[in-house]
Amino acid sequence: MNKIYRGTSQVNTLEREIFLLRGSPLAMDEPLDKYLEENRDRFLEQLVELVSIPSVSTDPAYRPAIRRAAEWVEAWCRRIGLESRVLETPGHPCVLARGPEVPGKPTILIYGHYDVQPAEDPERWRHPPFEPVIADGRICGRGACDNKGQLMVHLCALEALQATSGLPLNVIVLVEGEEETGSPNLPALLEEHRHELACQVAVVSDTSTAVKGIPTVHYSLRGIVFLEIEIQVSSRDVHSGIYGGTLANAIQVLAKMCSKLHDEHFRVTVPGFYEGVLEIQDWERRLLQELPFDEEEYARWLGVPELVGEAGFTTNERRWFRPTIEFNGFSGGYTGNGSKTIVPSQAVLKLSARLVPDQDPDHVLGCLQRWFEAECPSFARLEIRVGDRGYPYLLRREGSGGRYFEAAVIAVQEGFGRAPLFSRHGGTVPIVSTFRTALGVDTLLLGLGSPDDGVHSQNEKFELVNFYRGIRTAAALLRELA
Amino acid sequence: MNKIYRGTSQVNTLEREIFLLRGSPLAMDEPLDKYLEENRDRFLEQLVELVSIPSVSTDPAYRPAIRRAAEWVEAWCRRIGLESRVLETPGHPCVLARGPEVPGKPTILIYGHYDVQPAEDPERWRHPPFEPVIADGRICGRGACDNKGQLMVHLCALEALQATSGLPLNVIVLVEGEEETGSPNLPALLEEHRHELACQVAVVSDTSTAVKGIPTVHYSLRGIVFLEIEIQVSSRDVHSGIYGGTLANAIQVLAKMCSKLHDEHFRVTVPGFYEGVLEIQDWERRLLQELPFDEEEYARWLGVPELVGEAGFTTNERRWFRPTIEFNGFSGGYTGNGSKTIVPSQAVLKLSARLVPDQDPDHVLGCLQRWFEAECPSFARLEIRVGDRGYPYLLRREGSGGRYFEAAVIAVQEGFGRAPLFSRHGGTVPIVSTFRTALGVDTLLLGLGSPDDGVHSQNEKFELVNFYRGIRTAAALLRELA
Repeated sequence: MNKIYRGTSQVNTLEREIFLLRGSPLAMDEPLDKYLEENRDRFLEQLVELVSIPSVSTDPAYRPAIRRAAEWVEAWCRRIGLESRVLETPGHPCVLARGPEVPGKPTILIYGHYDVQPAEDPERWRHPPFEPVIADGRICGRGACDNKGQLMVHLCALEALQATSGLPLNVIVLVEGEEETGSPNLPALLEEHRHELACQVAVVSDTSTAVKGIPTVHYSLRGIVFLEIEIQVSSRDVHSGIYGGTLANAIQVLAKMCSKLHDEHFRVTVPGFYEGVLEIQDWERRLLQELPFDEEEYARWLGVPELVGEAGFTTNERRWFRPTIEFNGFSGGYTGNGSKTIVPSQAVLKLSARLVPDQDPDHVLGCLQRWFEAECPSFARLEIRVGDRGYPYLLRREGSGGRYFEAAVIAVQEGFGRAPLFSRHGGTVPIVSTFRTALGVDTLLLGLGSPDDGVHSQNEKFELVNFYRGIRTAAALLRELA
Repeated sequence: MNKIYRGTSQVNTLEREIFLLRGSPLAMDEPLDKYLEENRDRFLEQLVELVSIPSVSTDPAYRPAIRRAAEWVEAWCRRIGLESRVLETPGHPCVLARGPEVPGKPTILIYGHYDVQPAEDPERWRHPPFEPVIADGRICGRGACDNKGQLMVHLCALEALQATSGLPLNVIVLVEGEEETGSPNLPALLEEHRHELACQVAVVSDTSTAVKGIPTVHYSLRGIVFLEIEIQVSSRDVHSGIYGGTLANAIQVLAKMCSKLHDEHFRVTVPGFYEGVLEIQDWERRLLQELPFDEEEYARWLGVPELVGEAGFTTNERRWFRPTIEFNGFSGGYTGNGSKTIVPSQAVLKLSARLVPDQDPDHVLGCLQRWFEAECPSFARLEIRVGDRGYPYLLRREGSGGRYFEAAVIAVQEGFGRAPLFSRHGGTVPIVSTFRTALGVDTLLLGLGSPDDGVHSQNEKFELVNFYRGIRTAAALLRELA
């Protein structure tokens, strides 16, 4: 047992239970370790190449790069001996690959996405976002962590296994290009290729660790509802001197709505919003207490003078167990250099609600639509545009989830020399609930990103230690699931 | 008296009094009328040329066009026989010209500006803003009315007088390039050239008529205070799933401030804001009642379902007699295509207060600064940037103002066949109060723009009838002031 717990200073409730059940030492795999050692530099060069492709899915201007990234991933899979192809969708293409048949073994689906978030404010990036730089043990660039780095962890592990012992089970690889826009075309694609995609479980690395340096199994995700609210009060912008004071101001109308969406305790005021929210369970509270978490360091990293959020909950409860509504963008009137003294006719708000189990996105959407309609004054015209929608996700440890929890513990032990953490996660991987609906399978979420990786922000990066150890872990996970 | 009142269906209190005092028919000027008739087309071509120069003063990108516009105006003045030069300032240059000396006659200062507002949202312009189009009796383009069209009215009148009878009095022409950014360098320039600029009265056409088609003498202007309010809550934008709910949202903080700046009666809540506001006088109420004003047509032109503003006042009282605060621009977070689910670190508000006599801009600025500081929560950092500031203006009819009122009535009669309206104006021409401070003179504001000219908005235009009749009026005004 010494071997299993080497380097582990924190042992949490779940992993203790799992190891008590298992009680056998871990296997070594010398050919695999040798192969990984010999190919370290090449793997990293390949990641640099992939991050260099500006595959921003939210902006049509990047369409050629999207195509290039899809073909890059497809070529990788083909090269290592998978049967691989690019599937067209009404939006961005998807890569589907399949390993050699391994009779009598289960089938797993490895999912990732090659598209990335936009990279605005170039002046706030230390390096150009699509010219990745390796420094201080990390790779910096848009998508380095979300999701190209974590996707490459699995692609490199597949190569290493193919080159040594061969794949120990049946593997399907599915890599899409619309995750950052809410995967609008993936459900239809899953439906169409349902038989080909039949599997026992999906594996996804698209989350960050709960604590820096410790891979984390995320057994729950928040869902999402994204809205654009447009207010129009007049047919054009007019001079604020000549007309100011006689007509509504679009910014004023929309700002008033924003200000009423939360009360002074940061609780959402929209009736029905909290319907279905699960209470925090006792074992979850124990996990939360055991979790090493330095609130001051967290605040320092965010660069905030104080942490604020819904009254009555701790910081980690607020981001993992509680639903929120955040304003993502607001624009109205003149926002260029200097002044332009107008009464603006139009203002637009982008907002997203993060939902927790068992909230229903459609119900929340309905509540929000009714609320905005009721709050819109008679002198303004309201338009609501509905964007991404994703269900919250919960892998219940009482069901088959327990088996996957166990495989993850063993694999992370091999790769990182310590057991993973188990935690909920505040983000959304809508595809996870889609897998449950379309394919009837659970998803094992193994987060390898660091909490300070800056995903969706400036200066995104991925720690090389997580990249290399992640590859070893991913290889071990396949064996454990076999 | 018939001749004087030809075509005049509305006669207001002030003009009746003035004509009762005067009682003599108007002079004709055949050589002048002939010259104007022969040069109509060329004058319009020249206006097209001037409007084609994109002399946007708020954006440094347009600096070369600013220079071109200044030189264009200087060349005009030189060509018609004025002693003319371009004066450099720390910002954009100024044109100063002087007519031949006319001994024993007073000196007037004609002021205008060659700079224009930005022209964003090109897709909302029917024609490119700097490729002026003549159609339906109007010239369309950025600056067509504000101020290039109205400036050209005076420049053409000067040419016509020079070419026929000669200038009847001493004329100084002052044309600046920073009016749309609050004339930051003009006060120092006036101070430096104080002796050269000594005059009895300034004449400015940079306002719109109170009613379409009737030139308007604006005896009062609103002042202005412009502010940029920046809120920062964290050192960077972060992922709204991973961190959302645990830190402040810059849009939320700023929107809450916006929502508190006015109460539900559209009254500004900032303590001290209304200090000094003059009550509406009885004779002003009579003028307001006599003014032909179709509120429904006004609302239709604005494209609003209803007019709203400070409780207890009429529409024209709200825009001419009451101070206001309008939000001119709001930007925060992601405002591009599609979605980017972040908690924004920063949000910026542009706002301007319009002030009426006898409010003090410095006092109002202090009140606003104190209010924003008090409203800023502990978890946000506030930065206030102070922009344009301009005093409100009032030409009291009891003083020397009466003389200028009279000259304007005669001149507009000659040009338009009816007397002008007298009205307050909601806009700001900061230079007017600067003329009083720096040169000790009053300003006669003769508005020739139409209320629907779209100044500071899309599809700006200037009516050709106002252009041509304006030139005749401007020539007559010089004679009357002589």
